[in-house]
Amino acid sequence: MNKRWIEGGITAPKGFVAAGVASGIKTGGKGEAAKDLALIFSSTPCVAAGTFTSNRIKAAPVRVSQAHLRSPDTHAILANSGNANACTGAEGIQNARRMAAAAAAELGVRASQVLVASTGRIGVNLPIEKIEKACPKLVRKLAARTDASAARAIMTSDTVPKEKALSLELPGGKIRLGGIAKGAGMINPNMATMLCFLSTDANINPRDCRRSLTAAVEQSFNRITVDGDMSTNDTVFLMANGASGVPEIEYGTPEYDLFEAALTRLCVEFAKMIVLDGECATKFVEVSVKGATTFSDASKMAQAIANSLLVKCALYGEDPNWGRILDAAGYSGGKIREEMVDLYFNGLLAVRNGVASGTPVSKLRRTLKQKRICITLELHLGKAEYTAYTTDLSPGYVKFNMGE
Amino acid sequence: MNKRWIEGGITAPKGFVAAGVASGIKTGGKGEAAKDLALIFSSTPCVAAGTFTSNRIKAAPVRVSQAHLRSPDTHAILANSGNANACTGAEGIQNARRMAAAAAAELGVRASQVLVASTGRIGVNLPIEKIEKACPKLVRKLAARTDASAARAIMTSDTVPKEKALSLELPGGKIRLGGIAKGAGMINPNMATMLCFLSTDANINPRDCRRSLTAAVEQSFNRITVDGDMSTNDTVFLMANGASGVPEIEYGTPEYDLFEAALTRLCVEFAKMIVLDGECATKFVEVSVKGATTFSDASKMAQAIANSLLVKCALYGEDPNWGRILDAAGYSGGKIREEMVDLYFNGLLAVRNGVASGTPVSKLRRTLKQKRICITLELHLGKAEYTAYTTDLSPGYVKFNMGE
Repeated sequence: MNKRWIEGGITAPKGFVAAGVASGIKTGGKGEAAKDLALIFSSTPCVAAGTFTSNRIKAAPVRVSQAHLRSPDTHAILANSGNANACTGAEGIQNARRMAAAAAAELGVRASQVLVASTGRIGVNLPIEKIEKACPKLVRKLAARTDASAARAIMTSDTVPKEKALSLELPGGKIRLGGIAKGAGMINPNMATMLCFLSTDANINPRDCRRSLTAAVEQSFNRITVDGDMSTNDTVFLMANGASGVPEIEYGTPEYDLFEAALTRLCVEFAKMIVLDGECATKFVEVSVKGATTFSDASKMAQAIANSLLVKCALYGEDPNWGRILDAAGYSGGKIREEMVDLYFNGLLAVRNGVASGTPVSKLRRTLKQKRICITLELHLGKAEYTAYTTDLSPGYVKFNMGE
Repeated sequence: MNKRWIEGGITAPKGFVAAGVASGIKTGGKGEAAKDLALIFSSTPCVAAGTFTSNRIKAAPVRVSQAHLRSPDTHAILANSGNANACTGAEGIQNARRMAAAAAAELGVRASQVLVASTGRIGVNLPIEKIEKACPKLVRKLAARTDASAARAIMTSDTVPKEKALSLELPGGKIRLGGIAKGAGMINPNMATMLCFLSTDANINPRDCRRSLTAAVEQSFNRITVDGDMSTNDTVFLMANGASGVPEIEYGTPEYDLFEAALTRLCVEFAKMIVLDGECATKFVEVSVKGATTFSDASKMAQAIANSLLVKCALYGEDPNWGRILDAAGYSGGKIREEMVDLYFNGLLAVRNGVASGTPVSKLRRTLKQKRICITLELHLGKAEYTAYTTDLSPGYVKFNMGE
């Protein structure tokens, strides 16, 4: 194996430091739970890329970071939890710019070299003075091996900090990739936001940095769903500082392919961690649609199944109600021929040629008692396939999201 | 007023009789709750029209009724609850045909003059012998003023039978429209199906019968959502027997417009009854999107809001979390300019120009304590508008749908 998991998170690659502190935005928590401001820094300038929510309503930090990514030499990411700075108008934009400026001033870089992200309740103005006041302390605390502290500071309703890193052996030497993330659909009882910040000490040009991130996100974060609601703040950043000293990775070479595969692997891992930590979820569910006519059909169907309330309720109840799965596939808009469809729960055939397979319901019921469920829908129409990741839906989810 | 509500349901128009009996498909219930087979009959032949689920997986009775509607002279509708006869392959089609044939034999009409519908669990073969055995008794019980009995026999998890009728004064005399319905998203803990059977003693040609039904369904049933899941069995039938003796209603005349408006009013009433009886719902919610660029944008946005789990959870919790509403509007795909948006809860301004309006949260919270909530999103971009009807989402819904 040319790649392996290593200790740490976003500071595992050379030249990155991070920190997390409590700035007072989160008023409820104490100790670790009060942390609400994270900073990631590379003293050498980075090539950077970002992918953002496709929601037409974009939070202020998303808009400001999109502008700052035009600057070719990124140095830092500053992120807060406890407030989304979304639906906050002109003042919101100003506050997102002030966030970047506050960190930049302490770090001795330009504001446009700092990316920003926020997560929390929508429609409340950011207490920007608290962030400005906390920046000097945050910069003083910057260090390697502080991933957990930074990961903790971006959490809202996540139950565990999420950090992960791996190393990759290339012909020119070893590079490292790392990151921290927080959950989607986990909503603090307020708003679902998925944030993931990634770092690497690889040497890569801006175009290939963007290209690899887009590919990795498509295979991972774009395939997960907890509640079907897409946040105004979803953000994934990748910073590459070249500190490994390994020669530049370029698209079209085996090195690039290895790099993209490693980045994808890391993103899939974060995506799964996010789903597993879904609000009050009791199951991790993989929905694979195979044999579709087109990729788009496979993706529509897998996502319709993964988002179906009735399917998710049945999974919570460990009820092998495959009719609801075929129903969702049917209304997804993708092409399906009922009489050709097979369906499996964890490899057990539940439906053959569109009708009950004869496998005893008691046996199907037993396999659904597992915490990890694979639903496989085989359409027998073509070669396209798609896998989506989701959770069940519990009464606890509703209670958790009903308000303050 | 040329139209007014009258007593009864599907037998309120002249010449229609109905009945409901227990055939033994529903094994759980007793007394009224055991009723599972409904028949509606007109001794004079009817012009008929049907609208069906757009799900690509269509239950056998849907396919058989689509074929029978090609026959120009419909006499009856036979419907069962307790079994959806969906995902049942060739045997399912055969059983749906046998349903029609069994009723036809007793009524002395052709099988193609009988429409059929089923609702209940998917993927289980219909106990057709029970239906065949019950048909003679069902036909003997046919009578006017038995709407409640027929309405009872098509219920699954509905808590009340749904029947409604109105009369309409036209220059040529009085006509009547009536119907019975059962709920959508109400699922018996298994599958959501919406059924509505409508009758009229108006004299109308087949094309205008279809035209008026399509228009009425678009303004009513197509605008309601309880859980976003679309059934394999959704069916609306309209039968017109001309027994009023009032001259033929033709498209392009004021009489047609009055007829279509009355039919739409009746369908909207059934749609609202269905939502109000939503599984474990505590709120009836009207989502109006106004000032959209196009009708399609307004409809996408209203439906995205009405289907958002997070919005529905917040409504259950009476939390004026308008950020979730803007978020859903933003990801719907419809055009929105955040800085121009106003949002109201029951007429109270919550958002002005995309930011919090300043109305005290306590006041917004108070208005959400009502059982009926109107959410109005004003985009200020154009003149198109759309209203969707939905419910909140309670922990009870999940418990109800988690399995047997």
